[in-house]
Amino acid sequence: MNFRTDLALERCEFLGKKTINGVKTDVIETDKAKVTRIDILNEDGAKAVGKPIGRYITVEVTPFAEHAQFIDDSLETVTEEIRNIIPEKGSVLVAGLGNSKITPDALGPKCASMIFATRHITGELLKATGLSGLRKVSTFQTGVAGETGAEAAELIKGAVNVLKPDVVITIDALAARNTDRLGTTIQMCNTGIVPGSGVGNSRQEISERTVGVPVISLGVPTVVDAATLILDCGGHNLDEENVVGQAGSMMVTPREVDLMIERAAKLTSLALNCALQPHISPEDMLILTA
Amino acid sequence: MNFRTDLALERCEFLGKKTINGVKTDVIETDKAKVTRIDILNEDGAKAVGKPIGRYITVEVTPFAEHAQFIDDSLETVTEEIRNIIPEKGSVLVAGLGNSKITPDALGPKCASMIFATRHITGELLKATGLSGLRKVSTFQTGVAGETGAEAAELIKGAVNVLKPDVVITIDALAARNTDRLGTTIQMCNTGIVPGSGVGNSRQEISERTVGVPVISLGVPTVVDAATLILDCGGHNLDEENVVGQAGSMMVTPREVDLMIERAAKLTSLALNCALQPHISPEDMLILTA
Amino acid sequence: MNFRTDLALERCEFLGKKTINGVKTDVIETDKAKVTRIDILNEDGAKAVGKPIGRYITVEVTPFAEHAQFIDDSLETVTEEIRNIIPEKGSVLVAGLGNSKITPDALGPKCASMIFATRHITGELLKATGLSGLRKVSTFQTGVAGETGAEAAELIKGAVNVLKPDVVITIDALAARNTDRLGTTIQMCNTGIVPGSGVGNSRQEISERTVGVPVISLGVPTVVDAATLILDCGGHNLDEENVVGQAGSMMVTPREVDLMIERAAKLTSLALNCALQPHISPEDMLILTA
Amino acid sequence: MNFRTDLALERCEFLGKKTINGVKTDVIETDKAKVTRIDILNEDGAKAVGKPIGRYITVEVTPFAEHAQFIDDSLETVTEEIRNIIPEKGSVLVAGLGNSKITPDALGPKCASMIFATRHITGELLKATGLSGLRKVSTFQTGVAGETGAEAAELIKGAVNVLKPDVVITIDALAARNTDRLGTTIQMCNTGIVPGSGVGNSRQEISERTVGVPVISLGVPTVVDAATLILDCGGHNLDEENVVGQAGSMMVTPREVDLMIERAAKLTSLALNCALQPHISPEDMLILTA
Repeated sequence: MNFRTDLALERCEFLGKKTINGVKTDVIETDKAKVTRIDILNEDGAKAVGKPIGRYITVEVTPFAEHAQFIDDSLETVTEEIRNIIPEKGSVLVAGLGNSKITPDALGPKCASMIFATRHITGELLKATGLSGLRKVSTFQTGVAGETGAEAAELIKGAVNVLKPDVVITIDALAARNTDRLGTTIQMCNTGIVPGSGVGNSRQEISERTVGVPVISLGVPTVVDAATLILDCGGHNLDEENVVGQAGSMMVTPREVDLMIERAAKLTSLALNCALQPHISPEDMLILTA
Repeated sequence: MNFRTDLALERCEFLGKKTINGVKTDVIETDKAKVTRIDILNEDGAKAVGKPIGRYITVEVTPFAEHAQFIDDSLETVTEEIRNIIPEKGSVLVAGLGNSKITPDALGPKCASMIFATRHITGELLKATGLSGLRKVSTFQTGVAGETGAEAAELIKGAVNVLKPDVVITIDALAARNTDRLGTTIQMCNTGIVPGSGVGNSRQEISERTVGVPVISLGVPTVVDAATLILDCGGHNLDEENVVGQAGSMMVTPREVDLMIERAAKLTSLALNCALQPHISPEDMLILTA
Repeated sequence: MNFRTDLALERCEFLGKKTINGVKTDVIETDKAKVTRIDILNEDGAKAVGKPIGRYITVEVTPFAEHAQFIDDSLETVTEEIRNIIPEKGSVLVAGLGNSKITPDALGPKCASMIFATRHITGELLKATGLSGLRKVSTFQTGVAGETGAEAAELIKGAVNVLKPDVVITIDALAARNTDRLGTTIQMCNTGIVPGSGVGNSRQEISERTVGVPVISLGVPTVVDAATLILDCGGHNLDEENVVGQAGSMMVTPREVDLMIERAAKLTSLALNCALQPHISPEDMLILTA
Repeated sequence: MNFRTDLALERCEFLGKKTINGVKTDVIETDKAKVTRIDILNEDGAKAVGKPIGRYITVEVTPFAEHAQFIDDSLETVTEEIRNIIPEKGSVLVAGLGNSKITPDALGPKCASMIFATRHITGELLKATGLSGLRKVSTFQTGVAGETGAEAAELIKGAVNVLKPDVVITIDALAARNTDRLGTTIQMCNTGIVPGSGVGNSRQEISERTVGVPVISLGVPTVVDAATLILDCGGHNLDEENVVGQAGSMMVTPREVDLMIERAAKLTSLALNCALQPHISPEDMLILTA
């Protein structure tokens, strides 16, 4: 494959077959959104798709640019799909991955800063808030190894050891192959994540194997690798070496990337907050996290 | 031409001829930087290049990523070239063009905020600073018409009427055709600017004709139009309509675009400050504008 | 008076009398908000209060911290009062005053960036939006003289000459005497503004006299001058010189000043947007300006 | 004591005695800076001063506003004092404490983001950099419990367990009693820190006892508690209850707080970077961390 993507959906599309051995795909399309559930069932499927065995859900929603209010049908679908893929009960650690200083990589940190943390709301503080039945949630931003000297996987493992969550949920900016998917797609999976793999800069895997508890990963594609886009448009006619020379470390984003990231972060964090605290309405959640 | 660029240099290169009728080109290459001076001498040259009659200087420097200190050989060359293209004396209004909320478009506003404004330094304040012989400089950020409801050209004209500068200097983020030029090139010209023309969203021209005093324009390319890059790589083999469909409103930037903009803004504003106040050293200028 | 404030309301309170010669005061208190309308009727009143002849309306609302949604009873009252003090018809220029780099001074720039500018929405763009009956609004940020070299009054005058609005509306961060008023009060007046007068750093007056069209000024107090607060608490027992020595250039803000500014800017800009375009609902306005 | 401060120096001053039982004080004053070394020797001293047994060094430098270049005599003194209080060898974890969204509390996060992390520079990357003899440094930002649901102490403990540094260095914004010390003082101590204690919002202690390795704490005072300043000015004449009513949750900062924080963060992080990697010059360190 001469292109890069973090989306299981695009990897399956690329194979171009109706059915892939070891892979089960369900598509549910409504007025609200298009949901694709891909189950990679065995090693054959994993090898074909290039992703570990597990479940990958992609929700394609209205372009973020159009839902400024964040409380609409898309939100409901995303919330519902997150609710289905995370454990029903137990405490949660949400980890925002990525570099807050690089605009298209800042989705994770931005989301993490909008998560409704509740683990510290006990005793007097709990009484003062008038809230009850809160699921225990904590959150932090891992930064990136080049800035911190520590792999995100290490820092998450350290936090897991001390905070003892039942599950880790990571949020990260992803790479897609198709520009139409930027800012209009949320992928969630139960296999963890290898940050940076979609842009050719793989970091340590973050998964149950490395951090000790199950890892659910959410992500939104925010860039297309420039070489991937060019090769995609040019087919077999292009000189791959020349393309990589011209486009090597370049990325493609919509002109209004800052706004796209802002809105994607708001939708993703609100949906996750609502999935974690189902007895709080989206409207009230917005007030609690404002 | 099926590609977009704001650089006169790239427009000349595209013509692929050694000599262009009505255009005079000088190249000075030193250890420090490569300077190309293009003089469009008459309407023939203007038509061929697609730019108004006037002088266009391009300084190609060390990639911004590598000169973290900003006081080096590149600075000296850029300062010198700016000094040569602006009038020797007289008061100056520096206008930062572009949208401060869109990372690759924020060069102009960032530069404007780092310009050493002196027009208000008189009387007691002048004594307090201990400075003397200051050239009168004022600065402002125009914003963009979609956010302000007013063309940058209009706001500059209004400011010119009241502040009565002898010359306007605009600073804007540009589009290039070649990714190698992003964050490594400064273009300066004495013909003003049509903001947004490099990315297909032309605004009102800012020139002596529209604002009433001569306009010098500085710019640094920060994006390549995605369709331009693809077509450039693919030559005649590509289906142009398909490319525009895939890449229409997309742009290509280096992954570390935020850092690139930051450094380009620092170098450009420091060079302009030093060109405007030649009796102040770069070191002292950094302190005055910190 | 040994204290500083930009609020006409606090200046009247300080006089400590039921009635002031040449001043008429009306208070309307509802569940929603407390509105005080002070009319300074003649020079006697102007001298007593230390403010020019004109109307000063103060709306005291729920602390901003508590209305995260911005669409509530406070909004309605603020919108209504703004609507009453601005001309019913005609084009508008909104000028955000203050320094965007100093957190408690950034209210004006923040508001300006959230104003729904419409002056450029004509022809094809107007058709595309599906909007109609829009009042012509443009907006810009003046910056501060110490950074731009130009007085806000000058830049506004320049913009007025070119854009030809029927009225200018300024927005600025104010100083109050009472900490309870920070982030809970909006003052609006029809006499323009002398920026910085509440913190002892007066700039050129912005009024019909200096810019050529009527000026309505909106403001929210975001700081208390530290010396003012101390003297206020200490009454006649304090050594004024010592206080000014300790507190000279200091200011008092709530700990969560960043959040307070953010919310005050959102409420003020939304109310102004709704007052200017009364046929658009607050909900739709939020979408248009998101 | 009716005032709050994080500075051991101010606590000693308050006692108003030349000598305090169990406390040894040395003052070294040079052209460059004033250094005060306070050793709390035993429980008597600890009780008198209200701080744990250990060493507290305060460096009073030129106001940050005046050293825009950051490479000057102050830097040398601060670097030297940090070098003396940290272990000579061994790996280091630098933890930035505080809330990046609250301007005067953002010192810790800002510093952490400017620390030269080296722990990941090994193998090929080490060769590429051409650096050698690097002390292993990692860094992260703890956030605050109200936003993350986790105490900074917990997250640091988790990171220590995994990264296994020999020492933790925390950086935090502090509260002072005297406004003259804001942005002109760096305190360093070898006893760890109780974040928020200077502003009446104590969090879990961060010390060898709670995180398992020695903790060195650096801090710069950025606020004065408003009630403290008022009571300080008013002496015994003030009604304390009234003061707390007026000033309860208010803080006092210089008007240019954003600039002060920026510069304090630059000086502190540069001094710490130079203390940790003594073979790299400040000039080169600036380039490495730009």
